[in-house]
Amino acid sequence: MRVVDLIIKKRDGGELTSEEIAALVRGFTGGHIPDYQMAAWLMAVIIRGMARAEIAALTDAMLRSGEVVDFSDLPAPKVDKHSTGGVGDKTSLVLAPIVAAAGLYVPMISGRGLGHSGGTLDKLESIPGFNVNLSLSDFRRVLAACGCALIGQTPEIAPADKKIYALRDVTGTVESQALMCASIMSKKLAEGCESLVLDVKTGSGAFMQKEDDAVSLAGLMVETGRAMGRQTMALITDMNEPLGRWVGNALEIRECIEIMQNRPAEKRLRDICIELSAWMLKLGGRARSVEDGRALAGEMLRSGKALAKFKEIIKLQGGDPAVCDDVARLPQARHKADVTSPASGHIAEIDCRSVGIASCVIGGGREKKDDVIDPAVGFEIHAGLLDPVEKGQPLATIHYNADARLADARDLLARAYRIAPGPAAAQRPALIKRVIE
Amino acid sequence: MRVVDLIIKKRDGGELTSEEIAALVRGFTGGHIPDYQMAAWLMAVIIRGMARAEIAALTDAMLRSGEVVDFSDLPAPKVDKHSTGGVGDKTSLVLAPIVAAAGLYVPMISGRGLGHSGGTLDKLESIPGFNVNLSLSDFRRVLAACGCALIGQTPEIAPADKKIYALRDVTGTVESQALMCASIMSKKLAEGCESLVLDVKTGSGAFMQKEDDAVSLAGLMVETGRAMGRQTMALITDMNEPLGRWVGNALEIRECIEIMQNRPAEKRLRDICIELSAWMLKLGGRARSVEDGRALAGEMLRSGKALAKFKEIIKLQGGDPAVCDDVARLPQARHKADVTSPASGHIAEIDCRSVGIASCVIGGGREKKDDVIDPAVGFEIHAGLLDPVEKGQPLATIHYNADARLADARDLLARAYRIAPGPAAAQRPALIKRVIE
Repeated sequence: MRVVDLIIKKRDGGELTSEEIAALVRGFTGGHIPDYQMAAWLMAVIIRGMARAEIAALTDAMLRSGEVVDFSDLPAPKVDKHSTGGVGDKTSLVLAPIVAAAGLYVPMISGRGLGHSGGTLDKLESIPGFNVNLSLSDFRRVLAACGCALIGQTPEIAPADKKIYALRDVTGTVESQALMCASIMSKKLAEGCESLVLDVKTGSGAFMQKEDDAVSLAGLMVETGRAMGRQTMALITDMNEPLGRWVGNALEIRECIEIMQNRPAEKRLRDICIELSAWMLKLGGRARSVEDGRALAGEMLRSGKALAKFKEIIKLQGGDPAVCDDVARLPQARHKADVTSPASGHIAEIDCRSVGIASCVIGGGREKKDDVIDPAVGFEIHAGLLDPVEKGQPLATIHYNADARLADARDLLARAYRIAPGPAAAQRPALIKRVIE
Repeated sequence: MRVVDLIIKKRDGGELTSEEIAALVRGFTGGHIPDYQMAAWLMAVIIRGMARAEIAALTDAMLRSGEVVDFSDLPAPKVDKHSTGGVGDKTSLVLAPIVAAAGLYVPMISGRGLGHSGGTLDKLESIPGFNVNLSLSDFRRVLAACGCALIGQTPEIAPADKKIYALRDVTGTVESQALMCASIMSKKLAEGCESLVLDVKTGSGAFMQKEDDAVSLAGLMVETGRAMGRQTMALITDMNEPLGRWVGNALEIRECIEIMQNRPAEKRLRDICIELSAWMLKLGGRARSVEDGRALAGEMLRSGKALAKFKEIIKLQGGDPAVCDDVARLPQARHKADVTSPASGHIAEIDCRSVGIASCVIGGGREKKDDVIDPAVGFEIHAGLLDPVEKGQPLATIHYNADARLADARDLLARAYRIAPGPAAAQRPALIKRVIE
């Protein structure tokens, strides 16, 4: 079998066998197949597509390229959630404590901010001392001790994904649902969970701007997860505006703690945390129905058990659990500046991706790989989609440290809002657009 | 301008500007753009295609990647011919002396055998002492002295083509008409000719098996040549059977010398040499019409002037010109073996590509890049397409040195012929299928 023949097969629209795909992934990960051959194959894949069986084979091959964690000795089901990413998306930080407090294991390997979208690891690192870089054995130790561990990708898990992703990033081969599916699922299935809830976002702040694309990616992932013997389901959720009232690393941790303190919270954020938790509890067998799951999740918040669990996690991962009682211990920016509405009327549209980019510009994300994040900066969002606004009323407040970055961020943010005259005629888009089981 | 954006533009079916293409070629040749990005772009090109303007820009950029030879100081027009390659295709070795003898300059940079197709350089090297590896200054010296020089590609000419071709070969991106056109034309236009006759072959022994593909490649090349200010035309010619009576390096040199000695020759081979020469003479202004060109070319053969010119060239390039008077001075194989017809009837089909591969197997071509060629071996072809044959009559005679290779070559050759019963109903395919001006 010559590599060039596998490239030509895909180039001409053919379907590769599992053995052929496994040989490609093994050869590339092992350094026997050079970057240029893999790049040509990836471009053929992105244009010609992949059949379901090929996606499953690719996921399996990437999964097996590294260590596959086995938590079967732990005495309760292991469940996880993955989100395709958005702006202000901090649900992991609430639902992981909820689900662990309810008695399931949540072994969660998360990512960093990517482009306009924030990352769970960056948010966690705004908690003084919090260490996301645990070894696999420390990951197991923390998980066994408190039911949840929140770490970053380790070199042992799906190394093929890391190598392939780095190549995709520089060869124009990112936007393939087949490759996205294999990338996400190979990592998630290697981390030892038996059940997986997927939050596939769609809208102006999502990677999948069109709902149809989100639905088809979700379908691929659910099918792939099942083909590999894991309970898998997906929610298609709205990302046409930032999720919650805050965008920024420490600011989002604060918002999560406030939800777990059972204080008044932005309704959509609280709802989606409850909804995703409910599905995790159902898949993990702690709730008989989603309805029951919602009730149990709400109970974990009201009783303070989720917050107590979050404190445990923080402590076991080297962080300062006192932030849960006093959010002022989190990093805070020195300055604030408002972005005001240029007219009266209602918010007809929010370019949510621009809000995410503005958050990078002000220092909350990375524009280049080695940029250092400022954990304190970000935005408070005062008004949501279709809300009525008066001219001069603040739409958002920027929390910042570096004066030099303010003008650009403010400009991006101001342009992200489209104000239309009069009251809104339409309804706010549904938060949960579809359930894919 | 980021390289990845140019890749994405082509991936999504867009058209690159001349500046963008020039930047890609410059970056890749200069080593600033890595193989993997070029490979992804080439795969996008092969699937999405290129517009005419893009092909011209690519040709121009590749041409300018190295030295562009200027022979404008030489006192007569410079014309060349390029063939897309076939089996037994030795026309360059006859027409270059004809055209130079008629007073035009023929600065010809040729290639080596590729796959099943033979190469002019390999054939020339079967002449004892003949040196095809001249520097550009020696190329100029020989050309000025005798009106023709026959050399291999030098590192100074279109280095981008060499680098891109090597990458295409291992990334499944060979079969693109756009890339083929740019590869051929960039080299040919860099070698200093003002007019170019293209011999685009079609049939079972050609790279373009379908006539439509040959016509469209020819059209691309003619248009590209004209766009770059050169007189360019193409003949679409038949390659459903080997050209001439001999296949093999020294054997083909012998056949060419015999044509120039004005001895009886295979009609199709002689006709195509005359036809291609006639067009070269017309484009170079030595003949007012193709008709006149044919007459002048025939005169160069009959008068012995073409043979005298070939002797001059051989001598100036270090070879033994006495081969032109005594072909027995060329290398000769020790053994002969016949491939006979298994039935009586007529030759209904010749898989000409298999004949070419059999010629590699017997030692006349390379199966791997660093194989050493045996100049003496090859085949004498006794019967052509649609000729009547008797059972047991020799179809071809193999000239060979290595016993170990005989069985495979004989087997390939035998299977290349399909014999059908009775006399042939069809007519032999036309030698010149189309003229594209």
